Amino acid sequence: MKKVRIGIAGYGNLGRGVELAIRQNDDMELAGIFTRRNPETVKTVTENAPVYRIEDAKNMQDKIDVMIICGGSATDLPQQTPELAGYFNVIDSFDTHARIPEHFSNVDKAAKESGHLAFISLGWDPGLFSLNRLYAESILPNGKSYTFWGKGVSQGHSDAIRRVKGVKKGIQYTVPVESAMDAVRSGSQPELSTREKHTRECFVVPEDGADLAAIENEIKTMKNYFDQYDTTVNFITEEEFDSIHNKMPHGGFVMRSGLTGDGEKTHQMIEYAIKLESNPEFTASVLICYARALARLKSEGKTGCMTAFDIAPAYLSRLSGEELRAQML
Amino acid sequence: MKKVRIGIAGYGNLGRGVELAIRQNDDMELAGIFTRRNPETVKTVTENAPVYRIEDAKNMQDKIDVMIICGGSATDLPQQTPELAGYFNVIDSFDTHARIPEHFSNVDKAAKESGHLAFISLGWDPGLFSLNRLYAESILPNGKSYTFWGKGVSQGHSDAIRRVKGVKKGIQYTVPVESAMDAVRSGSQPELSTREKHTRECFVVPEDGADLAAIENEIKTMKNYFDQYDTTVNFITEEEFDSIHNKMPHGGFVMRSGLTGDGEKTHQMIEYAIKLESNPEFTASVLICYARALARLKSEGKTGCMTAFDIAPAYLSRLSGEELRAQML
Repeated sequence: MKKVRIGIAGYGNLGRGVELAIRQNDDMELAGIFTRRNPETVKTVTENAPVYRIEDAKNMQDKIDVMIICGGSATDLPQQTPELAGYFNVIDSFDTHARIPEHFSNVDKAAKESGHLAFISLGWDPGLFSLNRLYAESILPNGKSYTFWGKGVSQGHSDAIRRVKGVKKGIQYTVPVESAMDAVRSGSQPELSTREKHTRECFVVPEDGADLAAIENEIKTMKNYFDQYDTTVNFITEEEFDSIHNKMPHGGFVMRSGLTGDGEKTHQMIEYAIKLESNPEFTASVLICYARALARLKSEGKTGCMTAFDIAPAYLSRLSGEELRAQML
Repeated sequence: MKKVRIGIAGYGNLGRGVELAIRQNDDMELAGIFTRRNPETVKTVTENAPVYRIEDAKNMQDKIDVMIICGGSATDLPQQTPELAGYFNVIDSFDTHARIPEHFSNVDKAAKESGHLAFISLGWDPGLFSLNRLYAESILPNGKSYTFWGKGVSQGHSDAIRRVKGVKKGIQYTVPVESAMDAVRSGSQPELSTREKHTRECFVVPEDGADLAAIENEIKTMKNYFDQYDTTVNFITEEEFDSIHNKMPHGGFVMRSGLTGDGEKTHQMIEYAIKLESNPEFTASVLICYARALARLKSEGKTGCMTAFDIAPAYLSRLSGEELRAQML
């Protein structure tokens, strides 16, 4: 069997996750890691992983079946994904929900022009959570959907904390409100405000002599990030921070509360939940399994841009249609 | 917009569920209910629903886009689905897991020969649970999957109870063992025996003067049905039975506990759960939303047999690709 040769563009936490996920799928192999840094300074997780300058990728088109682009959604992906789609089949995890239509259109154009296939916005949200919203809303048209995130680390909010004066280290956990989730499960279809759905828990290591009250106030009143939430700020030592808050757990819930039957009075509840010890490793696992689907759909002649919505589930599995029906249906 | 015209073959609880589900989807309309009974004796849930003899269906090929076959898996569907696939696009909820490959092959042959499209084994298990097994196992190849059912009414086990001498009325609830589910969620990947995963709870109205100890013993030792489980038998009055145990709730859980990362030590947990006040109404809702997908795939020229694995999620939704990306991704 010919393995799917994977390129990794961008080598942060997600890129390392992809590198490790390849090892769990022996129909995949790592063709190369591509970085903006000097390749000689990059220490890879696996031994003998080939590292190249990102500019050199274009010369390796015949060695890479799928390029997984592991940059950030704010500035990297809007530029990198359309550009690399000119040279490769690509997958990204673009997660700025409001800008997905624009990103889709740019990537679709580039991929169609060059005859490549591109999957965008994969991971768990967007990605698996989107799929669950779609399945549940299609099945229960009379109902209400809810998405809760956490408990987990929000990179954007942690970055925001670290920009506050007097903060040496900081991390933020998004915490779903248990009583709000229970209200949804009860079938009461509550209207929930932003404040009622999640709380924000911050752990901060202050600089020596910093004004703690000022830090706490600046965080709690920060526009868009914290002002709409009940936020707690905990000051801790650097030792505690380094030993406990060095992981990237996350998770969340997609719920659909619907009504069916005569008079639409019968309550039906669908709930999808994930609990992750490592957000980037899980996201990477999703991307790698969609790389399998991409290789297959490309071999069937598909080009342009697709999302999780457009991909039949069977393409993700190593099992044949016959095996799937016998073992998993 | 042209509506999808639905035929219902077989008018029990599931057929009534489909009839009601059509009313929740205004891109669908009921073309006719087909029954083995005398149509004049059939009282439909909705007013003016047209009821025909099942033999007359073949003369109505031009009036029906999708025939949803609502018979039982034991004897009805193995015969009806291939036969009706000779005349219609069909959907069934065939749920005898071990016989799915054979059923698929029979239906595929009939549908291909007549140029129709058939979806089999839809509902929640097989169906939504199968999809969740496939997605989760593809994403987390190093892991262990678990399916728990309940709390809910098992029709087969309730029927078995009612055949016991001295039983006037009886119902059986399958109950998942909470501590077993918690063990799975902990990431310990336990090996669970049949007895450890579910208990069986029976409610029995005895005939006057029946030997209660004999009934209880016969139920608890019944081969395959109860002997491998911890079973409780509760004797209740007919009034209590009729007022409390007249519904068909069900539900269940699909869980995947997987490991990722360096040394494969990072625990990642995926859990899908449904909690249904009415099993047949929910199953019907799944079937109707796949009828939309069928009509679309047929219009693209697809024929033969497909399962949930083969159908891209976007086909289920009333929203366009553009709308889905903007609103649901």
